[in-house]
Amino acid sequence: MGKTTAEDPERVTLAAISVLAGVSLSTVSKVLNGRGDVAASTRSRVEALLAEHGYSRRGDAAASAPLLELVFHELESVWAIEIIRGVERVAREHGMSIILTESGDRHSPDLDWIDGVIARNPAGVILVFSDLSAGHKQQLATRGIPFVVVDPAGDPAPDVPSIGSANWSGGLAATRHLIDLGHTRIGMISGPFDMMCSSARIGGYRAALDAAGITFDPALVLEGDFHPEGARLRALELLERADRPTAIFAGSDLQAMGVYEAARALGLAIPADLSVVGYDDLPLARWVGPPLTTVRQPLTEMAEEAARLALRLRREPGLEVQRMDLATSLVSRQSTARVDQAVAGR
Amino acid sequence: MGKTTAEDPERVTLAAISVLAGVSLSTVSKVLNGRGDVAASTRSRVEALLAEHGYSRRGDAAASAPLLELVFHELESVWAIEIIRGVERVAREHGMSIILTESGDRHSPDLDWIDGVIARNPAGVILVFSDLSAGHKQQLATRGIPFVVVDPAGDPAPDVPSIGSANWSGGLAATRHLIDLGHTRIGMISGPFDMMCSSARIGGYRAALDAAGITFDPALVLEGDFHPEGARLRALELLERADRPTAIFAGSDLQAMGVYEAARALGLAIPADLSVVGYDDLPLARWVGPPLTTVRQPLTEMAEEAARLALRLRREPGLEVQRMDLATSLVSRQSTARVDQAVAGR
Repeated sequence: MGKTTAEDPERVTLAAISVLAGVSLSTVSKVLNGRGDVAASTRSRVEALLAEHGYSRRGDAAASAPLLELVFHELESVWAIEIIRGVERVAREHGMSIILTESGDRHSPDLDWIDGVIARNPAGVILVFSDLSAGHKQQLATRGIPFVVVDPAGDPAPDVPSIGSANWSGGLAATRHLIDLGHTRIGMISGPFDMMCSSARIGGYRAALDAAGITFDPALVLEGDFHPEGARLRALELLERADRPTAIFAGSDLQAMGVYEAARALGLAIPADLSVVGYDDLPLARWVGPPLTTVRQPLTEMAEEAARLALRLRREPGLEVQRMDLATSLVSRQSTARVDQAVAGR
Repeated sequence: MGKTTAEDPERVTLAAISVLAGVSLSTVSKVLNGRGDVAASTRSRVEALLAEHGYSRRGDAAASAPLLELVFHELESVWAIEIIRGVERVAREHGMSIILTESGDRHSPDLDWIDGVIARNPAGVILVFSDLSAGHKQQLATRGIPFVVVDPAGDPAPDVPSIGSANWSGGLAATRHLIDLGHTRIGMISGPFDMMCSSARIGGYRAALDAAGITFDPALVLEGDFHPEGARLRALELLERADRPTAIFAGSDLQAMGVYEAARALGLAIPADLSVVGYDDLPLARWVGPPLTTVRQPLTEMAEEAARLALRLRREPGLEVQRMDLATSLVSRQSTARVDQAVAGR
């Protein structure tokens, strides 16, 4: 209060904005802090001026609440707990708590959400699998609240700091493993074709076939929905063909469970009659029968990395950040075996 | 400010406490609101006086933050996500967010935790599988913050509102199902013997045997640790006996996975050579091979019920609450079958 404004450029900006908006400094401060008792029209006028003048509260970690916001669009995902664990690990290291929200919308959290975030003033926001609207991004930027996307789906978001994993390499590793075991007719049950992670994994699958001189057969690549039941139906389609594949790359561990179920129904033994590779390496992969060979997607580490990046952005607001993909790796268990050469040569 | 104290009994109490403690009213208020800038000795003096005078902030839901605190001692649990979903459902209905903490201690959250809770002033606290220290209980009571325990382990906490499930009935249903299929030598791999849920399930198992006139054989009941690997070893012990059981009640779905693995290793087919019943009905139970017959523990509903109860206690602070157990039910899938009479009669 007794300070001269020259010492505090931030305060100058806020004072100027209060003059431009024709409101008191305390009203500007209420808007900044997400207090509810400001008329909507005043609030949007102040928000617009803050954005226009490129105002950004200094990214002082000490000034934020000891909270990390974690936003899922769908908690139903089997991944959710892996991701929560990663964020929790970082939160605990820093003596912070996690605020967990399920947005229910695949694309961005709903409108109320942002008011809560601003009022809580967390150290950072971690979004799983979704993005923010331009308006939400602007509001967080104004408050100096960084956000990072955990994006296993690999959808491109060039202007957003995000952590993904190497989907193409994962598809390559899964397929190369099967080729190394002598398989040449390898089916693939992909995730939804319109997701980048599906494209990347199919790309890796094709690259492995090409490198081995095996002709790509589009009839062997079916679109799944990442759920077991859809994969079971796709697997029946593949396995009831006269020239059925000797191996299936299932695109997710849950889809692999659908393939197991289809194989059981048809009396095919895994891996004697059919090799199966999953994707994700969920905890269940170790305990199904037989234990599943799969591509490990380091979900907990991805979430951890995202949380660390958000905290780093809080400390270093100017930091230039690019998307980062963590490595995937093949985990070989008992669902894959050398193909019977007679069958492979049919 | 302009009010006379006679209109506000709560304010009178706080004023009296400030006099007794020899501090200002604003210091008392800082302690109540979990603000950090009060000396530890002052804080504990004020806390003691608040407790002694039975002070309780009025349980006005409007005065709390739109938050539910959810505390796990271990996020590693496969149940965690089921419970989070239940609390999230209630949070969303009420436009609230969830604060998630992993306490890392099976018995109660650590000391820092309570300061964060008081500062955040949530509508309620839901604890999974753990309890609070007497001091923490007192501090929450003083602030009018209710808490409810989700307690699938069934450990008795008579003075604490808690939601559990019917473990004895679950053990009874699992065993009766196997008896109905003609099994008489039924192994059990229990959870840790010192947990109430284990006692209750073993009690249900014994009651089903007694009702069917089958002699209880303690050698058939082994202690597991709720993890697959421990159960695999116990199952090998049971199945390598000359008079091996024809069925195993596994005490948890993860333990059932260990039994599956042991059966595979010994070349025993499920259910032809061995029937298996799990406990929990985790999502994976549907997708293992063969799909697992299990006792459904309604974890999501239990968490939902706990969250609703916490909110109700916020609105009705005087409410007398007892422990409530939700029903368990047998889900029959393909891991159990009628026993081969020749084998049963060995």
